[in-house]
Amino acid sequence: MNQSPDLRILPAVELARMLRAKQVSARELLGACLAQIERVNPKVNAIVTLVAEQALAQAKAADEAIVKSGPLGLLHGLPVAHKDLFETRGIRTTYGSRIFQDHVPDVDALIVERMRHAGAVTLGKTNTPEFGAGSQTFNEVFGRTLNPYDISKTCGGSSGGAAVALACGMVALADGSDMGGSLRNPAAYCNVVGLRTSPGRVPRIAQANAWATLNVDGPMGRTVADTALLLAAIAGPDARSPIAITEPGARFAAPLERGFRNVRVAWFHDLGGVPFDARVRRAVDQQRPVFAALGCVVEDAEPDFAGLDEAFKTLRAWMFAASYAELVGANRALVKDTVIAEVERGSRITGLELARAEMLRTAAFERARVFFQNYEYFVLPVTQVPPFDVTHAYPTEVAGVQMASYIDWMKSCYYISALGHPSISVPCGFTSEGLPVGLQIVGRHQAEWSVLQLAHAFETATGYGQRRPALAEPG
Amino acid sequence: MNQSPDLRILPAVELARMLRAKQVSARELLGACLAQIERVNPKVNAIVTLVAEQALAQAKAADEAIVKSGPLGLLHGLPVAHKDLFETRGIRTTYGSRIFQDHVPDVDALIVERMRHAGAVTLGKTNTPEFGAGSQTFNEVFGRTLNPYDISKTCGGSSGGAAVALACGMVALADGSDMGGSLRNPAAYCNVVGLRTSPGRVPRIAQANAWATLNVDGPMGRTVADTALLLAAIAGPDARSPIAITEPGARFAAPLERGFRNVRVAWFHDLGGVPFDARVRRAVDQQRPVFAALGCVVEDAEPDFAGLDEAFKTLRAWMFAASYAELVGANRALVKDTVIAEVERGSRITGLELARAEMLRTAAFERARVFFQNYEYFVLPVTQVPPFDVTHAYPTEVAGVQMASYIDWMKSCYYISALGHPSISVPCGFTSEGLPVGLQIVGRHQAEWSVLQLAHAFETATGYGQRRPALAEPG
Repeated sequence: MNQSPDLRILPAVELARMLRAKQVSARELLGACLAQIERVNPKVNAIVTLVAEQALAQAKAADEAIVKSGPLGLLHGLPVAHKDLFETRGIRTTYGSRIFQDHVPDVDALIVERMRHAGAVTLGKTNTPEFGAGSQTFNEVFGRTLNPYDISKTCGGSSGGAAVALACGMVALADGSDMGGSLRNPAAYCNVVGLRTSPGRVPRIAQANAWATLNVDGPMGRTVADTALLLAAIAGPDARSPIAITEPGARFAAPLERGFRNVRVAWFHDLGGVPFDARVRRAVDQQRPVFAALGCVVEDAEPDFAGLDEAFKTLRAWMFAASYAELVGANRALVKDTVIAEVERGSRITGLELARAEMLRTAAFERARVFFQNYEYFVLPVTQVPPFDVTHAYPTEVAGVQMASYIDWMKSCYYISALGHPSISVPCGFTSEGLPVGLQIVGRHQAEWSVLQLAHAFETATGYGQRRPALAEPG
Repeated sequence: MNQSPDLRILPAVELARMLRAKQVSARELLGACLAQIERVNPKVNAIVTLVAEQALAQAKAADEAIVKSGPLGLLHGLPVAHKDLFETRGIRTTYGSRIFQDHVPDVDALIVERMRHAGAVTLGKTNTPEFGAGSQTFNEVFGRTLNPYDISKTCGGSSGGAAVALACGMVALADGSDMGGSLRNPAAYCNVVGLRTSPGRVPRIAQANAWATLNVDGPMGRTVADTALLLAAIAGPDARSPIAITEPGARFAAPLERGFRNVRVAWFHDLGGVPFDARVRRAVDQQRPVFAALGCVVEDAEPDFAGLDEAFKTLRAWMFAASYAELVGANRALVKDTVIAEVERGSRITGLELARAEMLRTAAFERARVFFQNYEYFVLPVTQVPPFDVTHAYPTEVAGVQMASYIDWMKSCYYISALGHPSISVPCGFTSEGLPVGLQIVGRHQAEWSVLQLAHAFETATGYGQRRPALAEPG
């Protein structure tokens, strides 16, 4: 007898096709995900709020719509979960903070609204550090999320629960957000895909600053094509955001195939003095022949990132202060020390320091523009170190270099954030200990499509993302 | 015998057509403008740097291109002048400052580059206040620019030289920039048209902050269609600006005609306590039946502008400090007091004050979004007072209300700047003293096209812009 396909690990693109072809029902699919969550989630703590009953009702409605042959959204019937930083109407949203441990919003974040509208079935919320601060995933409401490839290691963050849920086959797709690497770092640590979008690509309904460009929302998936599918559903203009890019999201649902003959790729060295763990460097550098085999012309070259460390740290602290100063003032005992310190530092930033940060970022953007006239892509590691001990809040040392702060080990991600270019994390192999490593592809300004295309070609040529964690395998 | 048309006052759209049809040559057209400048400019001081020889060479080349029947740019052969805040390669650019009185840039500002590329003939630079600060036009390099309808009055500013040059038939089109009203206020005071664009519509090559949204560049003309023609040449994306709107400029060259049956227009009252001179209020309110006659449904309604006064003043001072703190520090004796005071105030602004300004602006943008779901347009006066005595730096009183600062009399403009919506100034009549009054039409977010369409219909129905100043008439 034929063995039925494993619904937990099929690509979302394939699941969407099977749903439409009535080869699988939304209820079957949801059932497989719920069973996986029941079995695996206690080992990793990725899904922190589960709304199974509500999801079953959505799946039932999705199946009825398929029978009626009406128009179906891009994500019709696909089980998803939302990062616990995103407001979900009627579903608890804690931001990883004890202050909000019983908070139930009455509105959806825009990204959630769009996923619902595209027909996704919401089964719950994914874990995140307190207010998304730090590229680890732990908080006092839900505890730690563990790396499914080695539960003694971190899954990264801040979209850590999303990456783990994807890696373990608990959801077909997941959303995330990224200020200093939060869509890319957990994707790298969990052997899945995360795309940092351009500011305005996935519009946000801002409370604090509708013109802010450092923090972006974006898609995660087990494959590049899945990530593009989710992007197609969540991208496009919205009148509530003044910086929304007007291009419709639908273009990201097109086939990703293209040729790369003579396409120019710049290969990283050290970003002007950033340390990389030898295991990460080796795993990424070993991929260089793959790009050459695709037809790319690969050269040693880097944009000049001077000034972006200062610019990012200043703008990040300012944004924390802008968003949380009042909250921290009123609830100090309920907030973790790193957030308090960030808010206090941010509260002392002067207007002239901010002006200097914008000037540094402007100069770097212009240098990158010139750089990217000569190269379509810049390739570098996502992270500077492999997944580290889950009991550590952050690595204090990278390749023998002491880290000056709790975010300094994330420069390979936040330099790119400060530039504002789109960037993807795609699996590129494992350390000798079996820990996943991510390769980062940075594209031109607003060129998500180009980034997705090369990542898809790389993924197709290598297939590292197909190695699922053992603890998620059928028991 | 037939009288030949007066080339100095024909619309640019008509001149462009005549050039292509070889009914007039670029040299003839330039000759008419240069003659007008020679005769009238000494009375009003609009053009402060003239490059007649260079312009003649450009006009000659333009005529040769017409003979060769090659592809012609949108502005081919049209005489223009650039605001002296815009860098012009090889042409003195002073920013109205003694520090730069002999400064000759080796690059063009992006707006200048685009006008050149579209075939415009540059005949010189138009006057502006020192660093564009203040809606008057005087500086210590070139002195005052006078209102051609009454040379004892101000022409407004900061694009004052541009508005006067247009009103007097010295140029066919002119560019300008607008932080707190600088494209709209001088247009209103000189009976011409000025369009404040959306941030990113006409991209800027920024030195200080490439993501800044308060200061925008834009077109001015004697008619709405002329203004749209210039916009078509200067709008569209550029890789040097991260916030550039991707829509091509060419769309603004389409015919402006459309119907306005049942189109909803909100009519101003007092913007939440802003004083208006009775003469201005009367001139604008008298136009209400014109909109009704076009088919519009006109209702008394205003967006809620609460918080925008604080937000604008904070962001403006911060931008002055960011741009000029170093320069003022090194050249204090050469800078006017209002700029020094603005820079000093801006230098003291804290990060939290800036965060509050962005939060206030974000809240107002969201309220305006809801407001503009119900109305396509908001109509109000451009200025709160008619042109005032040219010896006054600014009005100290409006309708019996004392002004707290040198910019408080510009709220009717800068509230709109802070929102970020596009807005146009179109002539709407004269006070009993014969001073021009401007009507301001504000559209939805990024809806320049809609704004231009209604302004064009209003202009066609009324024709106030056709009354040229007596001092510019053929002598």
